[in-house]
Amino acid sequence: MALFDLPRAELERYLPDVAEPADLDAFWARTLQEARTHDLALRVEPVDTGLRLVEVFDVSFAGFGGQPIKAWLTVPAHRSGPLPAVVEYNGYGGGRGLPQGHLAFAAAGYASLFMDTRGQGSQWGDGGGTPDLAGSGPAHPGFLTRGLERPEDHYYRRVFTDAVRAVEAVRALDLVDPARVAVAGASQGGLIALAVAGLVPDLVGVMADVPFGCHFARAVEITDTTPYAEVTKYLAVHRDRAEQTFRTLSYVDGVNLGRRATAPLLSSVALMDTICPPSTVYAAFKHYGTRAGTTPDKTLEVYEFNNHEGGGGHQLARQLPWLHQNMAAAAPVAEAIR
Amino acid sequence: MALFDLPRAELERYLPDVAEPADLDAFWARTLQEARTHDLALRVEPVDTGLRLVEVFDVSFAGFGGQPIKAWLTVPAHRSGPLPAVVEYNGYGGGRGLPQGHLAFAAAGYASLFMDTRGQGSQWGDGGGTPDLAGSGPAHPGFLTRGLERPEDHYYRRVFTDAVRAVEAVRALDLVDPARVAVAGASQGGLIALAVAGLVPDLVGVMADVPFGCHFARAVEITDTTPYAEVTKYLAVHRDRAEQTFRTLSYVDGVNLGRRATAPLLSSVALMDTICPPSTVYAAFKHYGTRAGTTPDKTLEVYEFNNHEGGGGHQLARQLPWLHQNMAAAAPVAEAIR
Amino acid sequence: MALFDLPRAELERYLPDVAEPADLDAFWARTLQEARTHDLALRVEPVDTGLRLVEVFDVSFAGFGGQPIKAWLTVPAHRSGPLPAVVEYNGYGGGRGLPQGHLAFAAAGYASLFMDTRGQGSQWGDGGGTPDLAGSGPAHPGFLTRGLERPEDHYYRRVFTDAVRAVEAVRALDLVDPARVAVAGASQGGLIALAVAGLVPDLVGVMADVPFGCHFARAVEITDTTPYAEVTKYLAVHRDRAEQTFRTLSYVDGVNLGRRATAPLLSSVALMDTICPPSTVYAAFKHYGTRAGTTPDKTLEVYEFNNHEGGGGHQLARQLPWLHQNMAAAAPVAEAIR
Amino acid sequence: MALFDLPRAELERYLPDVAEPADLDAFWARTLQEARTHDLALRVEPVDTGLRLVEVFDVSFAGFGGQPIKAWLTVPAHRSGPLPAVVEYNGYGGGRGLPQGHLAFAAAGYASLFMDTRGQGSQWGDGGGTPDLAGSGPAHPGFLTRGLERPEDHYYRRVFTDAVRAVEAVRALDLVDPARVAVAGASQGGLIALAVAGLVPDLVGVMADVPFGCHFARAVEITDTTPYAEVTKYLAVHRDRAEQTFRTLSYVDGVNLGRRATAPLLSSVALMDTICPPSTVYAAFKHYGTRAGTTPDKTLEVYEFNNHEGGGGHQLARQLPWLHQNMAAAAPVAEAIR
Amino acid sequence: MALFDLPRAELERYLPDVAEPADLDAFWARTLQEARTHDLALRVEPVDTGLRLVEVFDVSFAGFGGQPIKAWLTVPAHRSGPLPAVVEYNGYGGGRGLPQGHLAFAAAGYASLFMDTRGQGSQWGDGGGTPDLAGSGPAHPGFLTRGLERPEDHYYRRVFTDAVRAVEAVRALDLVDPARVAVAGASQGGLIALAVAGLVPDLVGVMADVPFGCHFARAVEITDTTPYAEVTKYLAVHRDRAEQTFRTLSYVDGVNLGRRATAPLLSSVALMDTICPPSTVYAAFKHYGTRAGTTPDKTLEVYEFNNHEGGGGHQLARQLPWLHQNMAAAAPVAEAIR
Amino acid sequence: MALFDLPRAELERYLPDVAEPADLDAFWARTLQEARTHDLALRVEPVDTGLRLVEVFDVSFAGFGGQPIKAWLTVPAHRSGPLPAVVEYNGYGGGRGLPQGHLAFAAAGYASLFMDTRGQGSQWGDGGGTPDLAGSGPAHPGFLTRGLERPEDHYYRRVFTDAVRAVEAVRALDLVDPARVAVAGASQGGLIALAVAGLVPDLVGVMADVPFGCHFARAVEITDTTPYAEVTKYLAVHRDRAEQTFRTLSYVDGVNLGRRATAPLLSSVALMDTICPPSTVYAAFKHYGTRAGTTPDKTLEVYEFNNHEGGGGHQLARQLPWLHQNMAAAAPVAEAIR
Repeated sequence: MALFDLPRAELERYLPDVAEPADLDAFWARTLQEARTHDLALRVEPVDTGLRLVEVFDVSFAGFGGQPIKAWLTVPAHRSGPLPAVVEYNGYGGGRGLPQGHLAFAAAGYASLFMDTRGQGSQWGDGGGTPDLAGSGPAHPGFLTRGLERPEDHYYRRVFTDAVRAVEAVRALDLVDPARVAVAGASQGGLIALAVAGLVPDLVGVMADVPFGCHFARAVEITDTTPYAEVTKYLAVHRDRAEQTFRTLSYVDGVNLGRRATAPLLSSVALMDTICPPSTVYAAFKHYGTRAGTTPDKTLEVYEFNNHEGGGGHQLARQLPWLHQNMAAAAPVAEAIR
Repeated sequence: MALFDLPRAELERYLPDVAEPADLDAFWARTLQEARTHDLALRVEPVDTGLRLVEVFDVSFAGFGGQPIKAWLTVPAHRSGPLPAVVEYNGYGGGRGLPQGHLAFAAAGYASLFMDTRGQGSQWGDGGGTPDLAGSGPAHPGFLTRGLERPEDHYYRRVFTDAVRAVEAVRALDLVDPARVAVAGASQGGLIALAVAGLVPDLVGVMADVPFGCHFARAVEITDTTPYAEVTKYLAVHRDRAEQTFRTLSYVDGVNLGRRATAPLLSSVALMDTICPPSTVYAAFKHYGTRAGTTPDKTLEVYEFNNHEGGGGHQLARQLPWLHQNMAAAAPVAEAIR
Repeated sequence: MALFDLPRAELERYLPDVAEPADLDAFWARTLQEARTHDLALRVEPVDTGLRLVEVFDVSFAGFGGQPIKAWLTVPAHRSGPLPAVVEYNGYGGGRGLPQGHLAFAAAGYASLFMDTRGQGSQWGDGGGTPDLAGSGPAHPGFLTRGLERPEDHYYRRVFTDAVRAVEAVRALDLVDPARVAVAGASQGGLIALAVAGLVPDLVGVMADVPFGCHFARAVEITDTTPYAEVTKYLAVHRDRAEQTFRTLSYVDGVNLGRRATAPLLSSVALMDTICPPSTVYAAFKHYGTRAGTTPDKTLEVYEFNNHEGGGGHQLARQLPWLHQNMAAAAPVAEAIR
Repeated sequence: MALFDLPRAELERYLPDVAEPADLDAFWARTLQEARTHDLALRVEPVDTGLRLVEVFDVSFAGFGGQPIKAWLTVPAHRSGPLPAVVEYNGYGGGRGLPQGHLAFAAAGYASLFMDTRGQGSQWGDGGGTPDLAGSGPAHPGFLTRGLERPEDHYYRRVFTDAVRAVEAVRALDLVDPARVAVAGASQGGLIALAVAGLVPDLVGVMADVPFGCHFARAVEITDTTPYAEVTKYLAVHRDRAEQTFRTLSYVDGVNLGRRATAPLLSSVALMDTICPPSTVYAAFKHYGTRAGTTPDKTLEVYEFNNHEGGGGHQLARQLPWLHQNMAAAAPVAEAIR
Repeated sequence: MALFDLPRAELERYLPDVAEPADLDAFWARTLQEARTHDLALRVEPVDTGLRLVEVFDVSFAGFGGQPIKAWLTVPAHRSGPLPAVVEYNGYGGGRGLPQGHLAFAAAGYASLFMDTRGQGSQWGDGGGTPDLAGSGPAHPGFLTRGLERPEDHYYRRVFTDAVRAVEAVRALDLVDPARVAVAGASQGGLIALAVAGLVPDLVGVMADVPFGCHFARAVEITDTTPYAEVTKYLAVHRDRAEQTFRTLSYVDGVNLGRRATAPLLSSVALMDTICPPSTVYAAFKHYGTRAGTTPDKTLEVYEFNNHEGGGGHQLARQLPWLHQNMAAAAPVAEAIR
Repeated sequence: MALFDLPRAELERYLPDVAEPADLDAFWARTLQEARTHDLALRVEPVDTGLRLVEVFDVSFAGFGGQPIKAWLTVPAHRSGPLPAVVEYNGYGGGRGLPQGHLAFAAAGYASLFMDTRGQGSQWGDGGGTPDLAGSGPAHPGFLTRGLERPEDHYYRRVFTDAVRAVEAVRALDLVDPARVAVAGASQGGLIALAVAGLVPDLVGVMADVPFGCHFARAVEITDTTPYAEVTKYLAVHRDRAEQTFRTLSYVDGVNLGRRATAPLLSSVALMDTICPPSTVYAAFKHYGTRAGTTPDKTLEVYEFNNHEGGGGHQLARQLPWLHQNMAAAAPVAEAIR
């Protein structure tokens, strides 16, 4: 893929004005408060995977509307004391699959929780196990246009709530040190990580790679690939709903939620990314943490010749020392707090 | 498109064995009975469309679960006495759109009811207005894999119920002669028409063109286009669910429901149809009405060089005299009954 | 499809200089004068379509070179007095098809004439019935490059002449009020409508949606889709004919003919239209009627997220009241004149 | 491209029954007789090409309807006595281009005439210069569906007549030995060569590579590529014209005309040819010359792994010695006759 | 993807005759003997990956021609006594990438050696580090057609030799129990695993998923995807080399080498696999071990609705218990031998 | 293809700064010096092609590393005195094929040498016969990324050396006038011609059409087609090698070598060329000969509507008189020198 978005020099100067609803904080405060009226209903059951260096548990907790959300918890078999933890979110269309496919953070010594994405998990990979019990108005195939009519009904309101609850679930585990939790994800997973970063205080780190869902209005202008194009196609049918659509999306835009984050960020962008165009990722990165009192530490790895695969394993190799360092820095604080 | 399915001579001899669940009748009897516990809640409101030869009404009635289902009712502006009626169902992904786009049956003198398909209507055309309030397990984008886990949860259980209720709604209208109602549709609409033909007695005619949803097990073997391929992709992820999947689909297979039909059928097939392969349409046609005491009159128009567009307007031109004739034959009976 | 042409703000300021031949008016005056040396040879034969609210007639009249051109005339079955009329032109490659497919304007109370496009009608839809008896020099498949060698030989010279004669044909019908005639079409049909608007005085309205054939030099620079790309491919072979080609096309450019129009215009543009790029449509709209003494009323509906389907049924819904209003305004004048 | 037609062993046994009209000979006799009522009007004008081993002439002669047909004549600059000649026909959509592109047969010592194909030459290559002055009924873009309504109107009736006249033209040249003329072509050119072989007696050889236009009914069943697919698409619109279409095509089918040939044939087939499927080429080869009293010598080169490029230059390398040998064998006869 | 190869019932009966050169054993004996004239030159250097449950080493050993071949060795950080080991081979075009991407077998308690494929590793993934120092005759882009002129020169002769040496390298490690070594790979990696199974005695298990490189003559007939299509395209140019090409390939065909295997096999096939068609995988499976005195245990997992992704993580989940069981069964033998 | 690079007016002003290594001249001086340590080993063997106006010889000479490079020499059969000569280089992936395919320059009276490109010739056309005996590090399929690690190892270092030696070979032939030699090629052949123009003094002319390999850094930014995209894909895997990659490519960039040329240039560019984008060709043209004391005559033919086919035969027609004129101008000088 050739360059199709701004050249690098312009990207580095790019700081778009992304619309933000006045009641964004109230919306999410209300949403999370409602979710917390349901008991967390945490269930943790060991599963036999044939893996020997780690133990794996099938986890379930109450997400949005109290609905059970599945996850895999993978922890070192040999461990002592509460573990720092990483909560991971998945890309669009995939499910939590099988635990054998999510070994890196556990192999790096962390408690690793890999959350299923409600309703997804039948498009690629090894499957998902979490239904999305809410219906929706007329929607384009996919998940992005479900509930565009009202912010209250939008699909990502439910998913982000699940994701916040996933952090609460991992913090509720005996084997986890609740003061040392990071979140991670790529593409849709990167969006969710940014959203959680804006909704959950006291995270130790946020790893959001080639994130989706940032600055929708620009995204639909410059890319015609799924998932962003689901919005375009929806608006091609519902010709009078552009304003409402972008208003709803502003409540779940990674730019807007990321602005509220306080934890350190390690992000990445690919300059030939046709799925999540680099200007939208730069937008998210530039705005990240700017609503916090002090802008947190943030780093953006730039992959000049990659499409949406971004940094691939190289980004993981970059993340592990970054994570070790942030967790180590957090440890004394955690000790002190505990 | 070249031929990719059986040659015509073999199609004409083709009569596959399509699996049918033992409790099919009970399943649907129970389903419809439950739906009828909800009041029909028929609402009929005039709308101004700028059309002058017809009057148009925005209709709503209670479908599956009592949920309101929208439809357009279009009737001749000059009329006397109760009208014979045609209920139409739409193709996959489309909504009821605008009434200006569904004029043919009204211009032919009928009361025409065009039903919205729940949840659909954001993919092409002029839009839909009916949500699908049920959630689902992990599903492939689209509607076909929603609820494959259990026949009770499958998407088409809800849609077929809506479609049966649409016939009941049109029969409840003062300006309609309930004894003279036909159903029609192409592709997904053809599947729904076949299903309604198997679930509603006393229809005057069934027009099902290039129907989707017939003999799923064969369809997924020979075509890789949407919507059938949604099943393939779902099973490519959920590698252990083939048996359950085809079992669920057997409850909504147009072959199985069409077997129970008693009304005359005018169907059509396109021999280069890559969306709804001809062998699956022949299967539906051959089995149509064979569970009734007497096999009803049935005709299959064969379009040798067409893909899924089938007969296009030529099939409509074929339908109008067929419909006039069947309606005329039904009129005295209708008179006698009334 | 993402945006690929100018952003909306720039489109609204865009007013390109489109080359116009000095003898354009003389060319067309001579052309139409020649056509009128042939008797109109109007034939109107009733056909049985199974439709009951309208009567349909198979019409033929003498077009360019006196060659018979076919059309469908559809009129309300119940009518009193001469009717206002709409003449419709078709998109590229299609034929007049079947009358069941062109019901909207008749259902809205008008005499509706749907003209066949000579030589076309074997590519999609339900078929055409009008040959194009002229041969051509070496041409790319399609119609656009036939006769590029000389304006006198170009295909659209013949088609636009047919289209003007279609208006004359409808005005010659007893059941039509010749003072109340509008023209309409989308894509190629929109080009023809613009051309007729520039060649026929006293029209009541012009409806030209996502018109093709406007500002060819820009079009071939920014789109590589058929039909514009036929010119590109032709010039890729005939490497020395660019100047002559664009000179010939300037005689049939919708911008140049539309400049001469005097009737009110309701047009539409889709900002993601890869077939008829929005800048070429804006060019036509901006220049429309500017050569007339007073620029006529003109309105452009903008569909921001649509490709070439443009406004679809929504544009029709927009057209009917606009048409009713213009026809009503014209009625007294028509009365006075008659 | 994988194999998509019959495997080689089955191809070698394949001998389909290809329908032939009873009046085929009369049709062509009448057609050629009419053409010969026009003077041949041979014009031969030298052109400066910068080539030094050959002389090149711009040739024109009267084809079908007496219309001028262009060709390039290329002959060795150093020559003595009348030359044997090769008449070449071009592939679909191309024109005679430039003489620098047709050097092989002249470099091999022959007078080489490369005929322009009327109306074609604007799709690829270096251009054509011969119009097709006949119009046609509604046709699909391309040339194959022009005049399908009647054998008399079909495009290839005109082209084959041009091609026969091209042989007559070359035979009328002083510098050519009329007793030693061969014909050649690939794809559409192969069809024309086969047709000429059936219509012109006393040819010394026929070279028809991967010929198009053989056994149309099978071709449209197994390939969906242009040009055969133009028939499919035409019949997808004109749903009631299959019988008439194939009847018309039977008058120009390479199988039927080739049956009448008497000259030796060197042909080639590619087993992965998606444009001209191998079974249709085998059909032509098997039937070639079988209506003649004695079946002529014929050879089929089989390229197992090629698509429509067939043998490429390797087939030319195969042709030159074959041609030298046949021409040498014909020389004494030619001497005796002269 | 729909079914394009044989249906399952026919696949289960399918046992093709695959040509085998008479000197196959001599060829490989000579090849390996030559390779072993070079010192193994094993280098093992620890690398810091940020992983804590495993230790990772950058390994190099002498492959074909003594050329250094790279690999990653990953072993449990907590271990006691010599470990059983798994040697893994990669898919086409990929390199050994980064060790963080190959954690499963180490996490399951094994010493895991992931071998780089010479010359590959620049097409997808995280990169390779092993050159292929041999040149080749004219070749199609890719690796498969390098050295088709002679078995001695073929690319896979070098790769399979590297792969055998990889087993020898892992067996030479102190921390590995040489009596308990298995091999594994998917696609090209599956081919290499089958080849090693035929060339190395005393393996404890062979895991070959959706293997490439089996029964080339059939493969090129039914698929046109890379890498098999590289052979097709090569033969489309080198029209006279089919016999030599398939003769060369017979020396590296997974069917022929797998026939000689003696170790238990766990394989998998996907019935909609367009890259490695199921009939070629069945051919390999059916012939596996049939040249050994006693046919070894062998199991084929069938994934009915998958393309080349095959069983994905589900196959890994199937492999771990199978591997544990085979390794456990081998342990006493290993003890006894040692 | 629409315009995707700069518009013509901007192209004409475009003069990018292309990075050039300081030791470029030394690098090539050393490279050629090493090559010349090998005897030229010129072999010239007549072949029978069936052509009669020309004689053809199978030529071999020592290229880079002394490796034999094949070529076809084609000369007029009737000739007197030493001939001026043209050395031609081929496009990417093709081989020297068969001599029947390279007749134009010989037919124009020149000795024509068509060089095989090492390792290529199995992708399209009639085949190649020259191996590339050097191996390479991990490379993307194709030739462009072989040896990107070091300028000394890069594939084009070997090819350009072969090409220089081809000129030396043709000059060593008795039948050639060494003072009158031109070089020619299109696409990759154009790059090689530019490179030879910079490395060989005293050429009479350089014909480089739509050249590849000019200004790589820009090319990979604006096109995603092969071969440039091989670099992009390589860098997408080897994420840390951009700097080294472009440094290596700067040694073989047609811009940098062309700067050193002194011979007249006739070049061509196609403004819709997606393979070799026009801005990169303009870059090469603008910089051509600017390092020479006096900038040589240079002409650029612009084809506005062509993709990579460029001027096709029209450019050849343009070249022959240009070549005749330059050769004629050189003749006296040649005479004087000799």
